[in-house]
Amino acid sequence: MELCDRPKNTNVRISLPAVCIVWQTAMIILFGVFIRYNEESDTHWIEQRKAKNISSDVENDFYYRYPSFQDVHVMIFVGFGFLMTFLKRYSFGAVGYNFLIASFGLQWALLMQGWFHSLDYSDGKIKIGIENMINADFCVAGCLIAYGAVLGKVSAVQLLVMTLFGITLFAVEEYIILDLIHARDAGGSMVIHTFGAYYGLSISWMLYRPNLNQSDRLQGSVYHSDVFAMIGTLFLWMFWPSFNSAVTDHGDGQHRAALNTYLALASTVLTTVAISSLFQKHGKLDMVHIQNSTLAGGVAVGTAAEFMLMPYGSLIVGFCCGIISTLGYPFMEKHLKIQDTCGIHNLHAMPGVIGGIVGAITAATATESVYGVEGLRNTFDFDGDFKDTVPTRQGGLQAAALCVAICFGVGGGILVGCILRLPIWGDPADDNCFDDEPYWELPDEEEAIPPILQYNNHMRNKDM
Amino acid sequence: MELCDRPKNTNVRISLPAVCIVWQTAMIILFGVFIRYNEESDTHWIEQRKAKNISSDVENDFYYRYPSFQDVHVMIFVGFGFLMTFLKRYSFGAVGYNFLIASFGLQWALLMQGWFHSLDYSDGKIKIGIENMINADFCVAGCLIAYGAVLGKVSAVQLLVMTLFGITLFAVEEYIILDLIHARDAGGSMVIHTFGAYYGLSISWMLYRPNLNQSDRLQGSVYHSDVFAMIGTLFLWMFWPSFNSAVTDHGDGQHRAALNTYLALASTVLTTVAISSLFQKHGKLDMVHIQNSTLAGGVAVGTAAEFMLMPYGSLIVGFCCGIISTLGYPFMEKHLKIQDTCGIHNLHAMPGVIGGIVGAITAATATESVYGVEGLRNTFDFDGDFKDTVPTRQGGLQAAALCVAICFGVGGGILVGCILRLPIWGDPADDNCFDDEPYWELPDEEEAIPPILQYNNHMRNKDM
Amino acid sequence: MELCDRPKNTNVRISLPAVCIVWQTAMIILFGVFIRYNEESDTHWIEQRKAKNISSDVENDFYYRYPSFQDVHVMIFVGFGFLMTFLKRYSFGAVGYNFLIASFGLQWALLMQGWFHSLDYSDGKIKIGIENMINADFCVAGCLIAYGAVLGKVSAVQLLVMTLFGITLFAVEEYIILDLIHARDAGGSMVIHTFGAYYGLSISWMLYRPNLNQSDRLQGSVYHSDVFAMIGTLFLWMFWPSFNSAVTDHGDGQHRAALNTYLALASTVLTTVAISSLFQKHGKLDMVHIQNSTLAGGVAVGTAAEFMLMPYGSLIVGFCCGIISTLGYPFMEKHLKIQDTCGIHNLHAMPGVIGGIVGAITAATATESVYGVEGLRNTFDFDGDFKDTVPTRQGGLQAAALCVAICFGVGGGILVGCILRLPIWGDPADDNCFDDEPYWELPDEEEAIPPILQYNNHMRNKDM
Repeated sequence: MELCDRPKNTNVRISLPAVCIVWQTAMIILFGVFIRYNEESDTHWIEQRKAKNISSDVENDFYYRYPSFQDVHVMIFVGFGFLMTFLKRYSFGAVGYNFLIASFGLQWALLMQGWFHSLDYSDGKIKIGIENMINADFCVAGCLIAYGAVLGKVSAVQLLVMTLFGITLFAVEEYIILDLIHARDAGGSMVIHTFGAYYGLSISWMLYRPNLNQSDRLQGSVYHSDVFAMIGTLFLWMFWPSFNSAVTDHGDGQHRAALNTYLALASTVLTTVAISSLFQKHGKLDMVHIQNSTLAGGVAVGTAAEFMLMPYGSLIVGFCCGIISTLGYPFMEKHLKIQDTCGIHNLHAMPGVIGGIVGAITAATATESVYGVEGLRNTFDFDGDFKDTVPTRQGGLQAAALCVAICFGVGGGILVGCILRLPIWGDPADDNCFDDEPYWELPDEEEAIPPILQYNNHMRNKDM
Repeated sequence: MELCDRPKNTNVRISLPAVCIVWQTAMIILFGVFIRYNEESDTHWIEQRKAKNISSDVENDFYYRYPSFQDVHVMIFVGFGFLMTFLKRYSFGAVGYNFLIASFGLQWALLMQGWFHSLDYSDGKIKIGIENMINADFCVAGCLIAYGAVLGKVSAVQLLVMTLFGITLFAVEEYIILDLIHARDAGGSMVIHTFGAYYGLSISWMLYRPNLNQSDRLQGSVYHSDVFAMIGTLFLWMFWPSFNSAVTDHGDGQHRAALNTYLALASTVLTTVAISSLFQKHGKLDMVHIQNSTLAGGVAVGTAAEFMLMPYGSLIVGFCCGIISTLGYPFMEKHLKIQDTCGIHNLHAMPGVIGGIVGAITAATATESVYGVEGLRNTFDFDGDFKDTVPTRQGGLQAAALCVAICFGVGGGILVGCILRLPIWGDPADDNCFDDEPYWELPDEEEAIPPILQYNNHMRNKDM
Repeated sequence: MELCDRPKNTNVRISLPAVCIVWQTAMIILFGVFIRYNEESDTHWIEQRKAKNISSDVENDFYYRYPSFQDVHVMIFVGFGFLMTFLKRYSFGAVGYNFLIASFGLQWALLMQGWFHSLDYSDGKIKIGIENMINADFCVAGCLIAYGAVLGKVSAVQLLVMTLFGITLFAVEEYIILDLIHARDAGGSMVIHTFGAYYGLSISWMLYRPNLNQSDRLQGSVYHSDVFAMIGTLFLWMFWPSFNSAVTDHGDGQHRAALNTYLALASTVLTTVAISSLFQKHGKLDMVHIQNSTLAGGVAVGTAAEFMLMPYGSLIVGFCCGIISTLGYPFMEKHLKIQDTCGIHNLHAMPGVIGGIVGAITAATATESVYGVEGLRNTFDFDGDFKDTVPTRQGGLQAAALCVAICFGVGGGILVGCILRLPIWGDPADDNCFDDEPYWELPDEEEAIPPILQYNNHMRNKDM
């Protein structure tokens, strides 16, 4: 912490361009060596299709996944970006840095996830297509969640470092959870949200700033910045059904995942409003809750969305998460030394853990009578013969996966937090946090007149 | 009206949480008792598909409907929500309450519409899938239209009550029009827009506030709030082709409905601009018209969009609606005691009625030579043998349906308006309308400090 | 130029309504005479489908194209519209006029493109469906790009004239490039971006205003207007993969085009940030670059996106364009007498030309070993027998197409620029540019203080 007391140098004129250019060059080289089109995005598809007797181009995975991909893409860039614009003077940083790290992250994710999941051993190349694009966006989501915890307190260079390590850790964690443990996590309650949130919270804990109150004047919203943030909230909320269904099984899997998420989110809105009103003086609603807690249901239903959670089950998950997430707000900084700018503990960490638990329970209680024999096998990807005990075992695997996600998040966050404490990254001083001024050319006039003066002026003009 | 003169208590700290929690709990119980996945969203789909010899997962209705559903979803939450942010100090209420009532409404709509349309008599359960999700969003649209009329003058609790009754009335009205009368109304000109608008206008008439001019200072826009409202306008405008085609027949039906709507909307923009400029001093354009009347063509083409309206027919509908809707603006409050905050009379009521009439005429004049024998049967869902006279009869049914929609809207609105006049709902006083202050925690207006002063201040703080 | 010195009359109360009504009426008549539904949007589809033995409704082109169409539609109306809202007092004009000219342009484009590409010689009618809707939106994009160059300096009437001629020129140019030269240009690097940009720049050059600095106080952004512009940037950026893949071949063509665009855009963001930071004092980022140059990769990959550009090839294209586009900003007005409000030279002209060149090279170097025999034929639409030399020839054709696009842009722009210099169009005076005030009813309170008074005030405050 003592490092924070030194005079800060926020000039990133050398470090930021250097990191961007070097890393982008590295990406080009690695893509050149490793990445090729997969069967369905290669010009040989037309021959393959005929050879494999696939009747129509519409069977190309592109048509099953692309609409969902675009929705997820909007969530990543507009959803996460605008959700963080709520601060009165950090909107450029919120949207701009979100844009930067997501663009870098998705390239690195294509490589990291590719090595684990899409490597063609016949020629040593990673073969990519639409599903890789969605998974890269998912991977990036984990890092953007982490960004929410440190919003306004770090430099762009730190964010890029955080993203490099975050994507790497994510890919390993995902490989362990999905491929080694064989857990299911369609919407990423564990893999994305739990990991991402604990990763960000641990980093924020490592970068704790005891004198952050010097930036208090900037750590709030203004009227219009709250409306901008609602753009982020709503695009996340609306497209969450696509997020949770984007990589589930074709057919009933995608259908059910979208439906469950739709219901869980609707339910969350009502309980969020209820609790927000109940705990405020005069029953007034708090925009912080409306912007964040309304999304908790989508997080919490992520793992179980593709299971037979049942419509009422989805509503119950949303009901509980709206309450828990909204109640979480006054808690964090008071009890733990974690400065969580966007409240990701309440929006991602807690609902993510709940989602993991709901997933484990739903899997453990799955029965042939509900799923059908083939449906059970299909939904959980069971191989060969399986007995009635298998769902129970799957429940255990899901619980194990949740632990892995938390461990990777906390461990990785502490490690990366140590690195980010080095005094070389150009982070802002305590009284300069939550301010675009050190890092952005700001427009410099007119708006500067306080509305109240404008009003007086106006009145004066009228009197004349 | 005398009730309005009492001192108002806008504290909803008990009533709002109570209503939200009780109703959400009721939803969970009713969903538990009644709602299940339908064939295509259930894990048994894989077996059913093989049994029914369906060749591909892409035949799951999800893939025909989901992209349209997401567009409609954006219209409901971002479109309607942001369209109403134009008021200078009611953006939180516009977006936030829109969010709340839509989230509640869609759950209740799934139940109400389910009982009428998706009840599986073999087990007494409602079986839901993607089409139910779209229809629930449609149902909600009716209530959001009604919200436009009373924007800024009611409390959240009143809105929830209004939505509960609105959805109920909608479902009955829809059942009568579509199932009993056998009218066609793909884009809901009658079922959604006409009903919703008259429902809202009647409520607003019942809640007439003679002293509303006390809130005049807040009943306008500011520059940036008008830009926010354009986000709503444009997302409604762009996705309207999806709205009108979302539940039409697969294949040419969806294709034609999207095309007709696209054309009608384009045409409306030009005549709206023309009339707006023509009737203003110096030919200046009025943002109120651009935000609202440009959408009238989409409303008016709703019923006929799936018919062979012909491309030029769509342009004509749009042409007329742009003119009529823009001319309607100075009319309402002057001649009728209805305070219509968002001008829904011009955006939804008149174009909705026009849409019903256009639908009736188009249906009545349908011929085998234009539609083809099978096409005619397919488009209008004619059963068994039918003769040349049938289209004429269909025209009559469409006209009857329009009357039903108006009656339900006006009747239901008067009834619900009476309920909402009870002095227990926490609505604002006349001089407190169009203001977020009574219901929302607002950010402190530090926006007021000019950055340059802030900076000096900042420097001064540093020196100290 | 001497025309500009006369007192200006910005009253468009007669001209704007007249042009709108007359042109819309003409559209209705021409649509009535020429435009009908195509096979797939006509009610006869159900019979046709059976006759042609098409197995499923999902083979209707609607399902291959509609999600992409909606994304493109968002780019046209929200993307281009909001990208131009960055000026502090021209947001109404940016979004509103964009809305107006796009709505008119797409109707005219359906006719112009229809005569060239969709004319059914059996009955002399143009048959339209979803692909025509996408192409009409593409055509409009060219004119909206041109609008970027003259933003804030012309009247709505001038814009409509510019659009009428722009669409006409576009359709001819497109016919020459795609049908006569047989070049490929899926994403329109040449046909749309190069043409549109040079068209706009030439017009701006013809309308050069030597005293434009009189509007300097309005020619910048304010904090919130920059955030609004980011909405435009992000929706363009996110949906660009849909833009480049919307009309490519079904199957692998659309798949590959989306993937290549996704990668090129990601790469551009990093180099844009690098160069923006490197050339600013203290390494601060400039919003102008983030808003514009980040999109250059999407433009430049347009032509080659459907080819086997390879993932690393896409990254390289994006890498270079981010650098070149960002470096271009200080260049234009200093060296050429062109006032390019939105910097379309850097966002569209240069990247468009690069895109044309990349396309020519990629086509010229295509080999059977990479594409496969059938893939090569399929990708480049080669007919009959072809030899190894054919790709080289295709490269030459692509280069020729690029020249055609530039010539049409420059030539057409000079021609239309002459017309627009007539003193009858209601354009603003030099000290009235970049201001919504002459053309829009502005909200009339608080914010309503004339900017010039605000400015004086501001100066006064500074002196104190």
